[in-house]
Amino acid sequence: MRESELLQHIYAATSGPTPLVPIPPGDDMAMLQIGDQAILVGVDQLVAGRHVDLQATPLELVGRKAVTRSLSDVAAMAGDPVALLAAATLPPDFGHARATTLFDAMRETADRYACPLVGGDIAFHSDPTAPLVCTVTVLARPGPAGAVCRSGARPGDRVFVTGRLGGSFGPDGLGRHLGFEPRIREALILAGVLESRLHAMIDISDGLARDAMHLATGSGVRIEVDTSRVPRNDGLDWRRAVGDGEDYELCFAAAGEVPTSLGGLPVTEIGRVLETAPGDTPAVVFMAGAAVVDATTLGWEHRS
Amino acid sequence: MRESELLQHIYAATSGPTPLVPIPPGDDMAMLQIGDQAILVGVDQLVAGRHVDLQATPLELVGRKAVTRSLSDVAAMAGDPVALLAAATLPPDFGHARATTLFDAMRETADRYACPLVGGDIAFHSDPTAPLVCTVTVLARPGPAGAVCRSGARPGDRVFVTGRLGGSFGPDGLGRHLGFEPRIREALILAGVLESRLHAMIDISDGLARDAMHLATGSGVRIEVDTSRVPRNDGLDWRRAVGDGEDYELCFAAAGEVPTSLGGLPVTEIGRVLETAPGDTPAVVFMAGAAVVDATTLGWEHRS
Repeated sequence: MRESELLQHIYAATSGPTPLVPIPPGDDMAMLQIGDQAILVGVDQLVAGRHVDLQATPLELVGRKAVTRSLSDVAAMAGDPVALLAAATLPPDFGHARATTLFDAMRETADRYACPLVGGDIAFHSDPTAPLVCTVTVLARPGPAGAVCRSGARPGDRVFVTGRLGGSFGPDGLGRHLGFEPRIREALILAGVLESRLHAMIDISDGLARDAMHLATGSGVRIEVDTSRVPRNDGLDWRRAVGDGEDYELCFAAAGEVPTSLGGLPVTEIGRVLETAPGDTPAVVFMAGAAVVDATTLGWEHRS
Repeated sequence: MRESELLQHIYAATSGPTPLVPIPPGDDMAMLQIGDQAILVGVDQLVAGRHVDLQATPLELVGRKAVTRSLSDVAAMAGDPVALLAAATLPPDFGHARATTLFDAMRETADRYACPLVGGDIAFHSDPTAPLVCTVTVLARPGPAGAVCRSGARPGDRVFVTGRLGGSFGPDGLGRHLGFEPRIREALILAGVLESRLHAMIDISDGLARDAMHLATGSGVRIEVDTSRVPRNDGLDWRRAVGDGEDYELCFAAAGEVPTSLGGLPVTEIGRVLETAPGDTPAVVFMAGAAVVDATTLGWEHRS
């Protein structure tokens, strides 16, 4: 069973929207209503050996990625970051200097996005071979147009992505998956321009194929993507572009006119939202010339 | 270097109180001011092999403890829990059924304390021998008398503990450290009765010796504890009672009359708060008959 399926199974036992939790867990972030304040909350983990290669990666970039992964979830909701908490479990021989470097990188990255580090925890593994785990919880406020969920895509919408996709993980373990910019500012601009026409959004962490599937499932729709339109990084075919993951670009569904760039970041129309045919389940299909490829045969995810 | 020293070192680079963060990291929880809402936030980790013995402990109790540890921090601030987020990194062969059991236990425990689970993350280690890590972030609101910090103890205050101390970890790895009740209700009653006379509070996780030291350091005072007054679990000497840790009882400093029980839970006066002598640093000393024992020679903590 995949990680996201496991989480969905676990969340299935939680109640739907309540006055306290108007957006329940299962989206990029949940939303709480505390007094008159709406607060978005989410948590994400970075595991050495899984999400970063600790041998190849400077600790500064490990700390940076632990924070930017969580901030990308804020962008996906078109939210405005408020504060974050960082916890790490370290190998027993990790050492004071390296722990400080790691937390300094998390704090500095958090500050750069005006999202101060307001809490933390450090624990040590007992097993010397056990890997570093960083867990970052982020709090945000909905942007001026409100929180944008995965569930609002409607038949007739068109589907867009920011930037270019694929090839984020270099063969040496380095690459854009470490240095990407979470699209917070761009998402706020987009929400500000489109307002209620911005129907659904997600950040691309598991690859466009899987993440567009979250939009389709959340919204109960069919999404058709024209593979010739998918903006790809140099030298990649469309399967790599939609399957590689860790792009941390935005994919969204909207009605009406959409800007072709957001503060210099290109926005590309890649597909459209349709009704699911009677008896069909929500789906994402990639139209590659004459071929029609179902998204479930593409993409990657950590498996148990 | 110890975990808490490392965290203090890291926090030393964060700014002091700000309008957004009126209680900065370093206390049991930080406080954020979002609009007109004050929100307490904190994060804690539970590491298999460190905080629980996964071989000896039913998974239901592992999930329970991951949540109650964080809720004990809410009690320490005299806060009212709002919601929590739970993340886990699991061994690759952990399996779907056990992951569900673990998260169900976290959700059910959270619900029992009216603190719903509103977010989560699951990741898998790549190394089959790597241990389970659970990270719980909790959000709370200050109780009716406001958040109670570690830093408010004043000379002339008396020092109290709830319940009885020591022996929480049984020789089989089981014991009260798994089944304890976080003292949320009792802390709210206490704050409601004492109001501004409740000057400082902490929950006892690392042992009274170390945790009273956090009060002394945070408040810039000397604390003297009469060892004959320390309420001990059966068969323990005072050194075990103040050193064992994982009691999750409350230790607080207050002025004036203090109830001798809170909803059935005994409250015991154990010492007093004094000024630090000129040239001295904050300290906790245990008066054991004619002997005076400095707290820094007692207690335990996970070391790197």
